[in-house]
Amino acid sequence: MAPVGPHPAVADVRRAVREALADLPKGALALTACSGGADSLALAAALAFAAPRMGLRAGLLTVDHQLQPGSAERARTVAGIAHRLGLDPVEVLTVTVGTEGGPEAAAREARYAALTEAADRLQAATVLLGHTRDDQAETVLLGLARGSGPRSLSGMAAVTGRYRRPLLALPRVTTVAACRAQDLAPWDDPHNDDPRYTRVRVRKRILPLLEDELGPGVAEALARTARMAREDSDALDQWAESAFQNCALSDIDRRITLAVPELEKLPDAVRRRVLRRAAIAAGAPSGALSATHVLAVDRLVTRWRGQKSVDLPGGLSATRRYGTLILAISPIA
Amino acid sequence: MAPVGPHPAVADVRRAVREALADLPKGALALTACSGGADSLALAAALAFAAPRMGLRAGLLTVDHQLQPGSAERARTVAGIAHRLGLDPVEVLTVTVGTEGGPEAAAREARYAALTEAADRLQAATVLLGHTRDDQAETVLLGLARGSGPRSLSGMAAVTGRYRRPLLALPRVTTVAACRAQDLAPWDDPHNDDPRYTRVRVRKRILPLLEDELGPGVAEALARTARMAREDSDALDQWAESAFQNCALSDIDRRITLAVPELEKLPDAVRRRVLRRAAIAAGAPSGALSATHVLAVDRLVTRWRGQKSVDLPGGLSATRRYGTLILAISPIA
Repeated sequence: MAPVGPHPAVADVRRAVREALADLPKGALALTACSGGADSLALAAALAFAAPRMGLRAGLLTVDHQLQPGSAERARTVAGIAHRLGLDPVEVLTVTVGTEGGPEAAAREARYAALTEAADRLQAATVLLGHTRDDQAETVLLGLARGSGPRSLSGMAAVTGRYRRPLLALPRVTTVAACRAQDLAPWDDPHNDDPRYTRVRVRKRILPLLEDELGPGVAEALARTARMAREDSDALDQWAESAFQNCALSDIDRRITLAVPELEKLPDAVRRRVLRRAAIAAGAPSGALSATHVLAVDRLVTRWRGQKSVDLPGGLSATRRYGTLILAISPIA
Repeated sequence: MAPVGPHPAVADVRRAVREALADLPKGALALTACSGGADSLALAAALAFAAPRMGLRAGLLTVDHQLQPGSAERARTVAGIAHRLGLDPVEVLTVTVGTEGGPEAAAREARYAALTEAADRLQAATVLLGHTRDDQAETVLLGLARGSGPRSLSGMAAVTGRYRRPLLALPRVTTVAACRAQDLAPWDDPHNDDPRYTRVRVRKRILPLLEDELGPGVAEALARTARMAREDSDALDQWAESAFQNCALSDIDRRITLAVPELEKLPDAVRRRVLRRAAIAAGAPSGALSATHVLAVDRLVTRWRGQKSVDLPGGLSATRRYGTLILAISPIA
């Protein structure tokens, strides 16, 4: 009889985890964040399996957001599963969610603050997150609807600082199948079905319609677009950084002076990034600086016909003076 | 009494046309392609109004695709409207549509061939096309579903060779309103409602759902994404072109030799463009060269562990030899 390996879905999740951890030194601690949902539960099981075989320690963090009745019990259940999987340390992190930026953003903020605190305290080398290709597709569609350009189409990175997302190339059906094959009972968060959340409407209504009307493979196409958009944005940011250094004549007390003839040599995409970069260096809050602001500054370079200074967030103004562009907090006399 | 100007929608279309024609020399001929639909009819009326005031000549081309009963009569009706608008020359171009690439692609191919032939014969400086912001949003969604990256999100260019698209920033409601305000009766092409066409499904089912679920402004956001994606791709293509010149050690008889250490210095997005550029220069047909092919060649650079040559379309192969990457038709012995 041929030897029986793990279920293909289980094998896929384990392989993804092994690849994500391959660079860690022996003895390092890898934590996984786990809500108890299928994605993060399959991830926790794969980590528990793979880590000891790679000479790594493996633990689990689960966050009690205290937003639903029974959330504390739910967190204890997840912790119990983690213990049975052999993960250690296992911690329940209880957080209080504020209201700033809406319920989704406030919960995310509280969650990441708690995860980062615990990872610091436990000296973890990495914290794994269970986002799948379907989450990535949803993120791309949300970015597309904002229309803030290729960077917002880049979705989530496979690595962000200490956080890693090993499952970003796997579909959600794989994590569900992996749980079933290992007799793990995932928790279905009722928030995941609540149509008041934009992301839920994207998942439940928009992506299924796209698959129906445009053919299967839309989620995969969106995830592929995200990867390419991220590579493109990274390359252009790199170009813009060196172009900024080249264009900056002086940078004193947040008063940035750029050489217009150097700016004029750059392609639109790079020049606009340089201008954005310069405005932020001069003190504009990046969240408040819109594409419209950057385009107004750009017209001082490319469509110069003597217009007055452009006001920018943070009390900043952009002024063209002879062959230079000056970005500074105080108005230029 | 205050003087009464044109309807705002009429003014918007005329302004867009004036801006698109601003660089043409006096006496030049601007043609517009017109199906008789609201977009191209509003465009034709705006051209008829604006061109004489700018010292330009203005004419109209309408294509009879011979695909629907009554198409010849329809084309004559459009020509009649054009004459009444004062356009001259006015031509009906009768084409025979093949089948290659599906009905939409075949009709497009036949149409552009006829338009280009007529523009050459009439020595036109430009041919205007009536694509609106809504068409652009549809194109972006179609590109997104293909998942072939930021270039496919770039949608349609405002200028492609002799063709110009003055209405790319205007919504379709503006062209409809402009026709109504000028008593022009647009023709509703039944193809525009036929759900067998992917584009029709995008227009009728997907975009309305996106607006419902994500809020209004999705079409505008998609058009904005297209513009930024196009700028990004243009900048990266420029970088890749100069990087290709820098990496190419020799380029003899379509046998391209690239320096691996130079390739290694490039960001992913640029290096992959250089490899694509090199494969095409070596003879790979660009339509057959997929992202998967390029990634396989890229692994010869970035994940080198002695793998064998990579086969590419057009009988080409990519081979790593010491510190070089060789792309050539004949196998490397």
